[in-house]
Amino acid sequence: MRTFRISIIGFGAVGQGVARSILSKQEYLNKQGIDLQVVGISDSKGCEINETGIDIEAALLRKKQKGSVAVGSGNGLDIIRDVEHDIVVEVTPTNIKNGEPGLGNMRAAFGSGKHVVTSNKGPLALHFSDLKELAEDNGLFLRYEATVGGAVPIFNLVHEALAGNTVIGIEGILNGTCNYILTRMSDERMPYDLVLKEAQELGFAETDPTYDVEGIDSAIKLVIIANSVFSQAATYKDVDVTGINKITPEALELANKNDYVVKLVCEAREGKLTVAPRLVPKRHPLAVGGTLNVASILTDLAGRITISGKGAGSIETASSILSDILYIVRNSKS
Amino acid sequence: MRTFRISIIGFGAVGQGVARSILSKQEYLNKQGIDLQVVGISDSKGCEINETGIDIEAALLRKKQKGSVAVGSGNGLDIIRDVEHDIVVEVTPTNIKNGEPGLGNMRAAFGSGKHVVTSNKGPLALHFSDLKELAEDNGLFLRYEATVGGAVPIFNLVHEALAGNTVIGIEGILNGTCNYILTRMSDERMPYDLVLKEAQELGFAETDPTYDVEGIDSAIKLVIIANSVFSQAATYKDVDVTGINKITPEALELANKNDYVVKLVCEAREGKLTVAPRLVPKRHPLAVGGTLNVASILTDLAGRITISGKGAGSIETASSILSDILYIVRNSKS
Repeated sequence: MRTFRISIIGFGAVGQGVARSILSKQEYLNKQGIDLQVVGISDSKGCEINETGIDIEAALLRKKQKGSVAVGSGNGLDIIRDVEHDIVVEVTPTNIKNGEPGLGNMRAAFGSGKHVVTSNKGPLALHFSDLKELAEDNGLFLRYEATVGGAVPIFNLVHEALAGNTVIGIEGILNGTCNYILTRMSDERMPYDLVLKEAQELGFAETDPTYDVEGIDSAIKLVIIANSVFSQAATYKDVDVTGINKITPEALELANKNDYVVKLVCEAREGKLTVAPRLVPKRHPLAVGGTLNVASILTDLAGRITISGKGAGSIETASSILSDILYIVRNSKS
Repeated sequence: MRTFRISIIGFGAVGQGVARSILSKQEYLNKQGIDLQVVGISDSKGCEINETGIDIEAALLRKKQKGSVAVGSGNGLDIIRDVEHDIVVEVTPTNIKNGEPGLGNMRAAFGSGKHVVTSNKGPLALHFSDLKELAEDNGLFLRYEATVGGAVPIFNLVHEALAGNTVIGIEGILNGTCNYILTRMSDERMPYDLVLKEAQELGFAETDPTYDVEGIDSAIKLVIIANSVFSQAATYKDVDVTGINKITPEALELANKNDYVVKLVCEAREGKLTVAPRLVPKRHPLAVGGTLNVASILTDLAGRITISGKGAGSIETASSILSDILYIVRNSKS
């Protein structure tokens, strides 16, 4: 049995999803000779550390009942620096201004010889190449499948499954909230404001929807794609962004009559990064509805490969994190 | 530079596509420190062997001009047994009766310490678990991404990108000929016979279309999926198969009116294997048109992940073979 010790830094929806997945997959992984041991968990109020393995069920229950996992006062950085382990699962919230606390956490991880698996878009949208270099210089992995597309394994698809292909361009629908709003507006001929309100009530949109509907979230994800797939050293400022908040039901109806749908499409091609509402033929692979995410990858050998799935959800995001952890387990020498 | 020596056994459309891809990717691979050297090529008329590396361009030209690559009289088995190399690319035609010559070629490869990458469905549909075991017993890889879905990396997606997930079921449209015929029948309200004739003229269907339209090709691919994903030890006889040759334009029109399309769907779920025409809602991820292939994978964590792309074509199939070769390069100790 190979034991890999893991910390979970950030214990919101995604962190709890990761904990729950590791718990539910224990037997399955043991059968493959893999033992994942969680030795540290932190949230904004404190942390739990147990170098022989945290009782995950008890930690999840405590979080639910008391609002925090904390039994001690340390923070994520303390765990990363002071607790001996192999993989830091960095799932603190995305901060697009300066990337903190994720950025500091990742740097500390690489500085102390630990691999990083993350769903945190901030540090990668701001400092992708620095972080990648820091990881490589230390012989460590930085894996970030969960930052873009939720459960949809876009990066793994490009880098491993389509290895040997040169990627010519990528188009994607990477924000489930926008996709939900546009789908409902089109299906029910409802105006933007009403659908947004409905989405907020259903939990598909935030109270402040700016981040989603103005295309900011999509642009951040596109920046990560540009860096990862095209080694582009792009940041948020390099993206030409238009949101969905000015789209009228009339425009959608006109599109519909001509067998098109309107989608908020992210595109990286020939060095240009664009997020904008676009007409997509109804039978085009990008024309997925509801809250789904989709990425369509244009390559030199395989042609166009399109992949879709759930773009959000704690267990769905945990799926991407778990596959990244298992990639490290398979490919690391320790 | 790590050098990997390769043989290409079978030099039809796929074999030539592999040769062309290796040629066009030489520089790209060299930059990554990988040198793929083709040391043997065989077709039904003979072979070329050059232990220091065949001139691929000349071999392709000779095949085009003379109908064969042969400069010597040996066959594939001679190359596999007698020429020192690392990876056998087994791309002889699928034979579903006894799997030969592919089956013998693969056994000889494993018997003489060589990895196998293949697009040949016969041996895998008939003897999947034997071949897998033989490979593993010898510490070798058997990779077969190109057997199902052409350029669409279904197996890599399930085994690597979705690692950690338990697959609950797989549905797919895995025969481009049938998908083309059904799409045209529906779009143009044309009868089956007429569309089949058109497809034959365009090269999308064989002169004897039985293998495709009766669902045999789909069933064979489903058997490989069942073995690979569900370790099911299934063979062709375990699949319940219905083809598309009895479908009328009236049935398609009725489906269309109710916002459905008819697709030849392969399904593996709860031990049952089925190939049959099915009603699919127009907006379902499976509802892809033309000659496209699609696989929709239902998992416990990631939910439903759907991937589509070109299911045939020599360069597209070569894409899957190349990614399998690179998987071996990354993961083998030699």
